[in-house]
Amino acid sequence: MKNQTIFFKNPVPVAETATIAGPKEGEGPLAKYFHHILDDDLLQQKSHEYAEIVMHSAVIRQLLNRAKLTAGDIDCAFAGDLLDEIISSNFAMREADIPFLGVYNACATLGECFLLGSVFIDGGYAERVVCSVTSHFATAERQFRYPLELGSQRTPLSQWTVTGSAATLLDKNSDSPVKITCATIGKVTDYGINDANDMGGVMVPAALSTLNAHLNDTGRDADYYDLIVTGDLGHAGSRLLEKKAEKIGIKMKNHTDCGILIYNREAQDVNQGGSGACCCGLVFNSYLYKKMRAGEYKRLLFLPTGALLSKTSSLQGETIPAISHAICFEVTE
Amino acid sequence: MKNQTIFFKNPVPVAETATIAGPKEGEGPLAKYFHHILDDDLLQQKSHEYAEIVMHSAVIRQLLNRAKLTAGDIDCAFAGDLLDEIISSNFAMREADIPFLGVYNACATLGECFLLGSVFIDGGYAERVVCSVTSHFATAERQFRYPLELGSQRTPLSQWTVTGSAATLLDKNSDSPVKITCATIGKVTDYGINDANDMGGVMVPAALSTLNAHLNDTGRDADYYDLIVTGDLGHAGSRLLEKKAEKIGIKMKNHTDCGILIYNREAQDVNQGGSGACCCGLVFNSYLYKKMRAGEYKRLLFLPTGALLSKTSSLQGETIPAISHAICFEVTE
Repeated sequence: MKNQTIFFKNPVPVAETATIAGPKEGEGPLAKYFHHILDDDLLQQKSHEYAEIVMHSAVIRQLLNRAKLTAGDIDCAFAGDLLDEIISSNFAMREADIPFLGVYNACATLGECFLLGSVFIDGGYAERVVCSVTSHFATAERQFRYPLELGSQRTPLSQWTVTGSAATLLDKNSDSPVKITCATIGKVTDYGINDANDMGGVMVPAALSTLNAHLNDTGRDADYYDLIVTGDLGHAGSRLLEKKAEKIGIKMKNHTDCGILIYNREAQDVNQGGSGACCCGLVFNSYLYKKMRAGEYKRLLFLPTGALLSKTSSLQGETIPAISHAICFEVTE
Repeated sequence: MKNQTIFFKNPVPVAETATIAGPKEGEGPLAKYFHHILDDDLLQQKSHEYAEIVMHSAVIRQLLNRAKLTAGDIDCAFAGDLLDEIISSNFAMREADIPFLGVYNACATLGECFLLGSVFIDGGYAERVVCSVTSHFATAERQFRYPLELGSQRTPLSQWTVTGSAATLLDKNSDSPVKITCATIGKVTDYGINDANDMGGVMVPAALSTLNAHLNDTGRDADYYDLIVTGDLGHAGSRLLEKKAEKIGIKMKNHTDCGILIYNREAQDVNQGGSGACCCGLVFNSYLYKKMRAGEYKRLLFLPTGALLSKTSSLQGETIPAISHAICFEVTE
């Protein structure tokens, strides 16, 4: 069996980040870290899909503005989202005038973007890469479950798809102390769960498989990291991961989850917490990135997790595969 | 504006290919080049989506068998398809036990896979990479247009989505004379067409934009290449591309198109020809690859083209963006 982990010869600087958070996310505990919070998740558009595209375009523009760059300064963009045929990314890239490589690994997409972007920069194929993801509660619910107009009751294991867009600039020549030093490519797992409302349960085996491969490949213990942050397993999924990890000898005392961090569970009626391609995008690009820049975390393992279902696969009775990629961020001077 | 083209320091060998063609494709002019032709496009499954997944799994197994390798010999796979959330790839990779990076650029997906795979190998991040794509007439028609059961009449500009799966092995240590020497990343174009039956017209601006960038970046004329092969513009689209190219000074005397090559237009009732993520996959991995290995073509520019629509974007009245990536194959001893 081959090593799943790529080590970068020249750690890849995370130069700048931008986030646009939805109204509900803006009422959560991370509000003060977001760059921009929306008043209205329809953004004066005629559909939530249009709103998601506008939000995604805007976050890329805001990233370039914050970095004082134009589209012509960027070698390429890796982007993805949850909508069929990743239209929120395709249509955002139509505005952006940047060479585009579309990716899809559901809510693990940002991990894939970081991994590919780092390879391009470390290998000398690009100097500046944009990684971006987006998700929207209303578009995801309509596509994967039920339209909001139905008023369906949410199940206890469900999570709340985050409304937001996040864009990250990887820049070879940046002096940012936050760098990507290695990354582990995940394999698809499927433990036979077919409940499209239990994303945490579906994704735990993928997170554990990739975490285990990462620790084996690097020869590290879990406590090498100040923080291990999974993508969006939520509360129940996170507890399950910690228990399963302990059974194979991995003690995750330093674990948290973007789906837990993004909402106030008691006050915000989100059941198991947040999910969606931009759940980990909003959390990493605001809160975690700022904490790393401030030196509060020096070694962080980021494990976005994705459930690889479609409404067709669900309606045809298939179980739900999942994937997770691991990205190692370290503060180096 | 930055260069869109990546030059590989060590040309990347295309070590092995595998193709599974549908029954209709097996009646076309390239039949003798395919590795395997199906008798029945349902493959004894309960739906065409299941059949597409079975076909995609099988072509990856066949590739590994032909190369005398196992999954454990492969560093990672880049795969994609046309179905919502690329389920034909996700579910195929569930069987494959190979680290997986899902990509989506519609019918330009194989170009993206070749580009990313070459970067991984040339940069020393992988030794062996699998690139694979799949498409199926029945699943694509149901998803993007109408279910076949409706018996809708096909419009004159329509193309026929190819049923097939194609997998390619890029191997750093192979002695294959066919190598990828450079690649150009495309940008998203949109000329305002909203007819989901006119894929050729939609994708011409993307093909032209990438071809022009490629020739500018490399300082080459079109006649540097023995053959320039676009993905699936079909007959009308190909003529339009040639005319548009001539207007900006590019003479495409050596141009053909995978959508033209794959069917016998008169006998097979396909209107403008073939399309679909695996149209260029079947044509490159069988006919073109064999011609290159035999030395009949020494320099070939491959320009898969993708229309970045979804049924939601079409129903909401959006126009159709498109993208194309260019991959330069050369025979070197």
